[in-house]
Amino acid sequence: MLTKNKIIDELEKFLPKDNILSTLEECYVYSQDGTNTRVSDKNPDTVIFPETIEDIQKVLKFANQNNIPVTARGAGTNLIGACLPDFGGIVMNLSKMNKIISINKTDMTAIVQPGLVVGELQKQVEKLGLFFPPDPSNLRVSTIGGAIAQSAGGPKTFKYGTTKDYVLGLKVVLADGSLMITGSNTIKNATGYPLTQLFIGSEGTLGIVVEATLKLIPKPESSRVMLAYFDNIEDAALSVNNIIDSKIFPSTIDFMDNNSITTVEKFYPANLKTDKTAALIIEIDGTNESVQKDGDKLKEVLASSNATDITISNTQEEYEKIWTARRSSFAAAAKLRPDVVTDDVIVPRSKLPELINGINNICNKYSLATCIVGHVGDGNVHPQIALNLENEEEHSNYIKAKEEIYELTIRLGGTLSAEHGIGAEKKKYLSMAVDNNAIEYMKKIKYVFDPKNILNPNKIF
Amino acid sequence: MLTKNKIIDELEKFLPKDNILSTLEECYVYSQDGTNTRVSDKNPDTVIFPETIEDIQKVLKFANQNNIPVTARGAGTNLIGACLPDFGGIVMNLSKMNKIISINKTDMTAIVQPGLVVGELQKQVEKLGLFFPPDPSNLRVSTIGGAIAQSAGGPKTFKYGTTKDYVLGLKVVLADGSLMITGSNTIKNATGYPLTQLFIGSEGTLGIVVEATLKLIPKPESSRVMLAYFDNIEDAALSVNNIIDSKIFPSTIDFMDNNSITTVEKFYPANLKTDKTAALIIEIDGTNESVQKDGDKLKEVLASSNATDITISNTQEEYEKIWTARRSSFAAAAKLRPDVVTDDVIVPRSKLPELINGINNICNKYSLATCIVGHVGDGNVHPQIALNLENEEEHSNYIKAKEEIYELTIRLGGTLSAEHGIGAEKKKYLSMAVDNNAIEYMKKIKYVFDPKNILNPNKIF
Repeated sequence: MLTKNKIIDELEKFLPKDNILSTLEECYVYSQDGTNTRVSDKNPDTVIFPETIEDIQKVLKFANQNNIPVTARGAGTNLIGACLPDFGGIVMNLSKMNKIISINKTDMTAIVQPGLVVGELQKQVEKLGLFFPPDPSNLRVSTIGGAIAQSAGGPKTFKYGTTKDYVLGLKVVLADGSLMITGSNTIKNATGYPLTQLFIGSEGTLGIVVEATLKLIPKPESSRVMLAYFDNIEDAALSVNNIIDSKIFPSTIDFMDNNSITTVEKFYPANLKTDKTAALIIEIDGTNESVQKDGDKLKEVLASSNATDITISNTQEEYEKIWTARRSSFAAAAKLRPDVVTDDVIVPRSKLPELINGINNICNKYSLATCIVGHVGDGNVHPQIALNLENEEEHSNYIKAKEEIYELTIRLGGTLSAEHGIGAEKKKYLSMAVDNNAIEYMKKIKYVFDPKNILNPNKIF
Repeated sequence: MLTKNKIIDELEKFLPKDNILSTLEECYVYSQDGTNTRVSDKNPDTVIFPETIEDIQKVLKFANQNNIPVTARGAGTNLIGACLPDFGGIVMNLSKMNKIISINKTDMTAIVQPGLVVGELQKQVEKLGLFFPPDPSNLRVSTIGGAIAQSAGGPKTFKYGTTKDYVLGLKVVLADGSLMITGSNTIKNATGYPLTQLFIGSEGTLGIVVEATLKLIPKPESSRVMLAYFDNIEDAALSVNNIIDSKIFPSTIDFMDNNSITTVEKFYPANLKTDKTAALIIEIDGTNESVQKDGDKLKEVLASSNATDITISNTQEEYEKIWTARRSSFAAAAKLRPDVVTDDVIVPRSKLPELINGINNICNKYSLATCIVGHVGDGNVHPQIALNLENEEEHSNYIKAKEEIYELTIRLGGTLSAEHGIGAEKKKYLSMAVDNNAIEYMKKIKYVFDPKNILNPNKIF
C-alpha cells in the first residue's frame, strides 16, 4: 500500500485541500463510531469529504488501483462497528453530500444525497403532506446513506416496514470507480434482478451509495400514542396478540421492562409507574375519526388483557412526553455505569416472553444491569447492558452473556440482527444465524463487486 | 447434451415413473405458457413433477453435471414467456409441491411450498383473521413460486406493496443441487446481504425456490369499492392526486379507459357507463367506521374532481360486481379479435395522462384496438391489444406499436415492467430501461449462481 503521504498527495490532485483531513488528531476521531465495544481502533490514513459523484468515482478508481481500503461513513451512529477503518486507508465522510435533490409531491418520491439526515428528510416531506416512515432512534443525526447501508428500521416498522421498503432506485459508485444506476423512478419495477435491494443492508461493502430515489406515502392525518402497564411479561405479550386479533393495526407496538421504566424515571422523571413489570407504547394513526375509534377500542382490548393505568395522548405535548420517555431509555441506561452496550435481536413474536425472561436470567447470572426495550410488535428486542467495559471481569461477563443471548435467540427461531446489521462487532457470530451456503454466496457476491476487497473490508464475514 | 431417452432413464432412477412425462403430446403442452406472442415453441425433453426438496436437489445435480437446461414452472400464467424451455431439457412442474406447511397466527407468518396457489393461501389465512395482500389478477390459479419469480403485484400494491414486501425467507435449490436457506422466520433481518430479495423477480434463473416463509398482516375488518367516471383522462389523473392530498390511503386505485368499459359492457353487461372516457375503481379498507368515513370523504373529493356517477359498494354482492367488471377486461378484450396481448409499463404517477393518451395515439396510428386498464395509483398501465397475430401486417404493426410504447414510457421516466417481468418476450428491450453497468453485474451474478447456465436459460438478458 502507498504511504499516508503519498495517498494524500494523490488525493489532493482531485479534491480541494480543505476536503482532506490528515493530522493524527483529525484521523483519530474517525477510528471510532457509535459502537462502545471498541472492536477496532485503527486510525485511517486520511478522511475526505467528497462533494460530487465524480469526486467519489475518482477516489475509488485511485484506491482500487492501489489497493487502498475505503470506508464510507454517514453520521457514524451505528452500534456494531460498521464504519470503522479496520485496515486504515481512506474514510469517506459523506456529510457534504447532504441535499434533497427533489421532492415530487404527485409522484410521492424524493431524490436525495446519502449524507442527508433522516429527520431532515422527514421534516421536509411532511411539509408537503407526505411521509417517510423509517424512524431509527438516532434520526436527528443519522443519514439516509447509513439507513440504506444498515437496513435501518425503528418503532414504525410494525406497520410501515423498514428502509428497504422505501428505496426505489440508487446511484452507486462501485469499487472500480464505475457508476451503476439501479431500479427506477417508479413505484414498482420488475426489470431484471433487484440490485437496489442487494445494496440495502450491505454495509458499504459492495459499493458506495451516492444518490437514492425514495418512495413516500401520504402522511396520516392524526397520530396518538398510548401507554399501558403490566404486572408480568406474559400479559404484555398476550396484549400484542389481542391487539392484532382485534383488527387494529397500530403503527408501533414498543416495549419497556421494569429496569427501563425505573431508570428512565430516575434520570428523566415522567411520572412512569416504577412498580410495574412492563409497559407497552402503542401508536395508532389514520384519520382523526379512525384514531379516535381505534383508541377507544384499544383501551378495551388492553383492559381485558390485564393492562393497568392506560393513558392516551390527547395533545402533541402528551404525545411527545410519552415518546421522550421511551426514547430516553438509552441515555438513562448510560447514566447507570460508564458504558452501555445496546444489542439487537429478534425472534418470532410468539417467543417474546421466553426471550425477554431469558435475557433477564442471563444478565442476572452474570451480574449485569440490563434495561430491555424493543419493538415487540416485530419481535425485536434491544437489551441495553450498562457496565464498565474497562473492568476486565465485567467485560468478560458481558461477552459470555452476549453469546448466551445469541444462543437463546437462535434456539427460539430468531436471528442476530433485526435492524442494526453485523459490521465488525457481530461477524464472528454470523454463522450461528446464517446458513453456510448463504454465507458462501454472500462472499462470492462481494468478490464480484469488489475483487480487491477495498470497500469497508473486514465487515459482515 | 444427453439424448431425451438417456435423460429420462436417469431421472427414472430417482423419480417415480408417474412423475415424468415424455410423450410428444405431453411435452408439447409445456412448450407454451400464458404468453400469446409465441416467442419460442421448443418442446422440453421431459416434464417432471418433484414431490420433495430432495427430488429437486437430485434433479439439479444431475442436470448440472450434464449441462441440461431446467425450467421451473408454476401455473404458467405469466405473459412474457418466462417459463418457456427455449433450449429444451427439463421442465420442472411444481404443482405437486403445493402445500401450506404451517401458518402461525401469533407470528403472522406462513411457511409454504412453491406450487401453492396464491388465492388458496389468501383463503386459508383469512380464516384466521390474517391477510396476504399480493393479488395478481390470475390469483385463482397462479402460484406463490411464480409470484416470487416474477415479483408479482396486483391492484392492492398501491397501499400494500408487492410480493417482495411479504417474503421473509426462502429455501432455494441452486444449480449445483445444493440447498441455500436465506432470511429468517422473523419480520426484520439485517444479517448480511439480503439474498432473499435477490431471488424475488429473478425468474427462476438463479435457483429454484422450494419453500418460502411469508409475512402476513392483520386482515382489515371491512373493504368497500367505489366506481367513478370521468369525461377525460386528465380529470381521472387529477382525482388520484386529490385523493392522496385528502389523506385517504386507498388500498387500490385502478383505471379503465372507454374501450375497456365498452368492451366489458358488451360481453359482460354490468350497467357500466359506456359514454364515459374513463373510470376509476377505488378500494378502501379499515375498520367499519373508518371505511364509512373515508367513503364519504372520497365521494366529496371525487365530485370536486369532476367525477360523475359515483357509486360505492354497500354489500358483498355489489363489491364483487364492480371487481368482476374490472377483472373481466382481459377476457372481454380477448373476444374482440383472435388474440389479445397484455403489456405492463409504468411511469411516475404525474406522467399518466401523457402515457395513456400516447398509447392510444400509437395504437390508432397502427390501427390496433387497445383496451387500457391499470393500477394508476402506482402509475402502472396494462394496454391490452386485441389483434390477429397470424395476420402478418397486424403482427408487424403490433411490434412497431409495442416498441413505440416502450420508447414513450422511457421518455416519460418510466420502465418496461412493473409486475410481469422480462422473460423471453422483453429481453431485447431490457437495455432501453436498465443501465448497462447494472446489466453487466446482473450477468455476473447469474454466473456466480449458475455458471453453466442451466437454469431457465435465455431469459431476462
